[in-house]
Amino acid sequence: METFSLFLVSPLMQDPQRIPAHDPVEALNAEYAQRSPREILAHALSQPGDIAISFSGAEDVVLIDMAARLKKPFRVFSLDTGRLHPETYQFLEKVRQQYGITIEICFPKPEAVEAMVNAKGLFSFYQDDHKECCGIRKVQPLRAKLATLDGWITGQRRDQSPGTRDAIPVIQADPGFSGPGKSLIKYNPLANWTSAEVWSYIRMMEIPYNPLHERGFISIGCEPCTRPVLPNQHEREGRWWWEEATHKECGLHAGNLEKE
Amino acid sequence: METFSLFLVSPLMQDPQRIPAHDPVEALNAEYAQRSPREILAHALSQPGDIAISFSGAEDVVLIDMAARLKKPFRVFSLDTGRLHPETYQFLEKVRQQYGITIEICFPKPEAVEAMVNAKGLFSFYQDDHKECCGIRKVQPLRAKLATLDGWITGQRRDQSPGTRDAIPVIQADPGFSGPGKSLIKYNPLANWTSAEVWSYIRMMEIPYNPLHERGFISIGCEPCTRPVLPNQHEREGRWWWEEATHKECGLHAGNLEKE
Amino acid sequence: METFSLFLVSPLMQDPQRIPAHDPVEALNAEYAQRSPREILAHALSQPGDIAISFSGAEDVVLIDMAARLKKPFRVFSLDTGRLHPETYQFLEKVRQQYGITIEICFPKPEAVEAMVNAKGLFSFYQDDHKECCGIRKVQPLRAKLATLDGWITGQRRDQSPGTRDAIPVIQADPGFSGPGKSLIKYNPLANWTSAEVWSYIRMMEIPYNPLHERGFISIGCEPCTRPVLPNQHEREGRWWWEEATHKECGLHAGNLEKE
Amino acid sequence: METFSLFLVSPLMQDPQRIPAHDPVEALNAEYAQRSPREILAHALSQPGDIAISFSGAEDVVLIDMAARLKKPFRVFSLDTGRLHPETYQFLEKVRQQYGITIEICFPKPEAVEAMVNAKGLFSFYQDDHKECCGIRKVQPLRAKLATLDGWITGQRRDQSPGTRDAIPVIQADPGFSGPGKSLIKYNPLANWTSAEVWSYIRMMEIPYNPLHERGFISIGCEPCTRPVLPNQHEREGRWWWEEATHKECGLHAGNLEKE
Repeated sequence: METFSLFLVSPLMQDPQRIPAHDPVEALNAEYAQRSPREILAHALSQPGDIAISFSGAEDVVLIDMAARLKKPFRVFSLDTGRLHPETYQFLEKVRQQYGITIEICFPKPEAVEAMVNAKGLFSFYQDDHKECCGIRKVQPLRAKLATLDGWITGQRRDQSPGTRDAIPVIQADPGFSGPGKSLIKYNPLANWTSAEVWSYIRMMEIPYNPLHERGFISIGCEPCTRPVLPNQHEREGRWWWEEATHKECGLHAGNLEKE
Repeated sequence: METFSLFLVSPLMQDPQRIPAHDPVEALNAEYAQRSPREILAHALSQPGDIAISFSGAEDVVLIDMAARLKKPFRVFSLDTGRLHPETYQFLEKVRQQYGITIEICFPKPEAVEAMVNAKGLFSFYQDDHKECCGIRKVQPLRAKLATLDGWITGQRRDQSPGTRDAIPVIQADPGFSGPGKSLIKYNPLANWTSAEVWSYIRMMEIPYNPLHERGFISIGCEPCTRPVLPNQHEREGRWWWEEATHKECGLHAGNLEKE
Repeated sequence: METFSLFLVSPLMQDPQRIPAHDPVEALNAEYAQRSPREILAHALSQPGDIAISFSGAEDVVLIDMAARLKKPFRVFSLDTGRLHPETYQFLEKVRQQYGITIEICFPKPEAVEAMVNAKGLFSFYQDDHKECCGIRKVQPLRAKLATLDGWITGQRRDQSPGTRDAIPVIQADPGFSGPGKSLIKYNPLANWTSAEVWSYIRMMEIPYNPLHERGFISIGCEPCTRPVLPNQHEREGRWWWEEATHKECGLHAGNLEKE
Repeated sequence: METFSLFLVSPLMQDPQRIPAHDPVEALNAEYAQRSPREILAHALSQPGDIAISFSGAEDVVLIDMAARLKKPFRVFSLDTGRLHPETYQFLEKVRQQYGITIEICFPKPEAVEAMVNAKGLFSFYQDDHKECCGIRKVQPLRAKLATLDGWITGQRRDQSPGTRDAIPVIQADPGFSGPGKSLIKYNPLANWTSAEVWSYIRMMEIPYNPLHERGFISIGCEPCTRPVLPNQHEREGRWWWEEATHKECGLHAGNLEKE
């Protein structure tokens, strides 16, 4: 812990322009690579600085439940794109009330939304691909939020996306969202868990879940860009299904794509 | 016509602070009081200045259809509160494509939305009443849009709301949204029509309609604040149903309340 | 008709106590024509012989509620065609439990159903018209049930169907379903009520109703042959909508058609 | 068992050509145990006597598709319990039309249905367990159908049900449904396939499927007794979920239970 705090402050101070080098975060990742989600999360929540859980309104609710059981203070934020399912808004509220937390909403800027929609309508992503819309409704608000944070905790898992998430570390530097003079650390406590393990946790602990999961949805994002999958179909096929089958990221986890 | 144009330009010029007096708009209203929706709309669209149809994504689509048949240029705007039904977004897009028009979206400001939601959650209106949320998601964006316009055209009808809409004129000054030095005129071409007449028009002309109307919805607003009504139930009972039965306005038509 | 009048009058003449004399049913109808649904129902339930309410699983639930409040014993039967909405089965059960009654189900014969379906599939009514299927799934089971009864009570109203129900009496002989040597009396306590009155009753008395009524359905029959209607659309347009707009009866109330 | 073996062996011994000898069905099963579904199905359809595919309206549609591609005549029957989902009735019709086949419907007897429902209501299975209702609506009609057949082909798989289906042979004698003097053979061409293999077939061959599979349903039976499952939940948990987790069979495949 000592070591890490040391690292976090000092090496970066020496060269604030640089994103941290090969060693310290990677070393930490190596140390935690085989630890449980709970241990990784406990480590993240014990770090100095501002750290928050990114909650998508889906099965990453387990992060909130684990954090609550750790009895440490934690922050949670969610990206409200303005196009979530009614069920997702209801679920966010249910989680807020059940855990007695504030969910910090990140909302897109009207100028950007209006310019896109007025020019191309409300469903331009079906023609253009989802990059522009995700950029405006998710990535820009996320970037603004991350600029205020030192670390963020996500529910990403290796089994979620063929091609883009199969090598996710449990702890990583996040240069894509690091600002000048500041390094952002990204924690993925569920990286090693499978979907089956997450759902076992949800069902055993009787955690609230998004009711869309009872209607064939596995992965959940914006309403127009999410659909249920068939039995035995990979969850990622329920997202941006009109696009090519692999390499699907909304841009929140841009590093996953860059690595390939 | 002459008279009105005269009025519109000259008297206001004389005293830009004042909201237009008893006579000219009222005279115009008296002249058009018994005219057909089409005639009132044609009059509105022939006025100088910037005038736009306010489209809610419901049965006021008849205004767009009538405007298109008049073969005059017209503008359309909609308030995207970030909480509309998925079906309403789809319907807005369908109308945009079918009529080949731009629908100018008015989107709320992130600061206001985030402050309210972070403090009170996503459904505070069920506790507080709908005024704060409508204020942030509808009235402020509308006010910003109306500040750029000289007139707006709405689908309001007398039969829509017991207590608040039973005396709507077909043409009225809209002091509530007039800015300093500028008078805003509000046109209500459907004021005299009944719901039955609007729906006869929709069905006879085979106009696209919001698919929620096939699921028991009559009046349509934001998703959490709209519900279907039972057979023979007044349409307004499907809006903000947890509040008192009359005097339901979201604030877009604030003048309706002030008059009482 | 000759034969029928003969039958209708003569057996009854032998026992004038049983049903009041001299085209006695018409006289009775004249007497009750302006009475309230409750009074007509009370009269029906006080008659000797076997009398039962025919319950369709829709807003005719008011008959059951009225009967329960009259504190007289009453019987209820329903036609389970094998193709009702899941919501209607649930509603039948809810009514059964709430009023503590037996709902006598009339189920179609497998030979008839199998012969029709094997030859033409499960949706032949969309090609052929609904007569054959209604005949097998509704009229034959009804006929078998009515053969055991002296009277039946229906929820028919004059405002339900343009062309077929606009002259429904409150009490009538039902020659179509009378067997040899037996006259069947049909009571329509709601004949004079409007849909609005029925729904006022349901809402004021807080009676359970079929949840389909919250989804745009007014008239409710079999699932494939019922659909929601649009605002201001006549309820009968939600039934057998692929057929001609008037003269829609399933055969339960065949007399309505014969009279025209 | 003694009696049965006696019966099973002796009549067949008289014509050893018909089905291979010396506990001939087991020998046949051994021969086909590792064969493909297509080969097992081809064998079944080439047998003399009356043989039919039992189609449940779910993913066993692959049997119909395979049979159609084999270009041999085949029969199909389905149990219409009177309580299937509207979507299942639609799917049965779609399959009937797409493959140009007759689907022989087996419908329950009114006396049995009426007696149960009048006594206990339409949802007695939630209290009693599902045995009585399945007995009346499924097993009796199946028994009547199987009495007319020499063999039936099912879509059972080992992976479908923990505890009851994990040792299903590909070909087996079906003493439970054999009548006096007649042996019934049951073919399970998909016994060795996994759910994933069935769904790969459906998607690759672009076979029509029940739209409930797009709404979280995997196993599909009667509407009140089937529900969607959560991600990673076993499909059998979507059937009779109020009962104990293993040993769930409706009685169609009673032999599966007897063996344990």
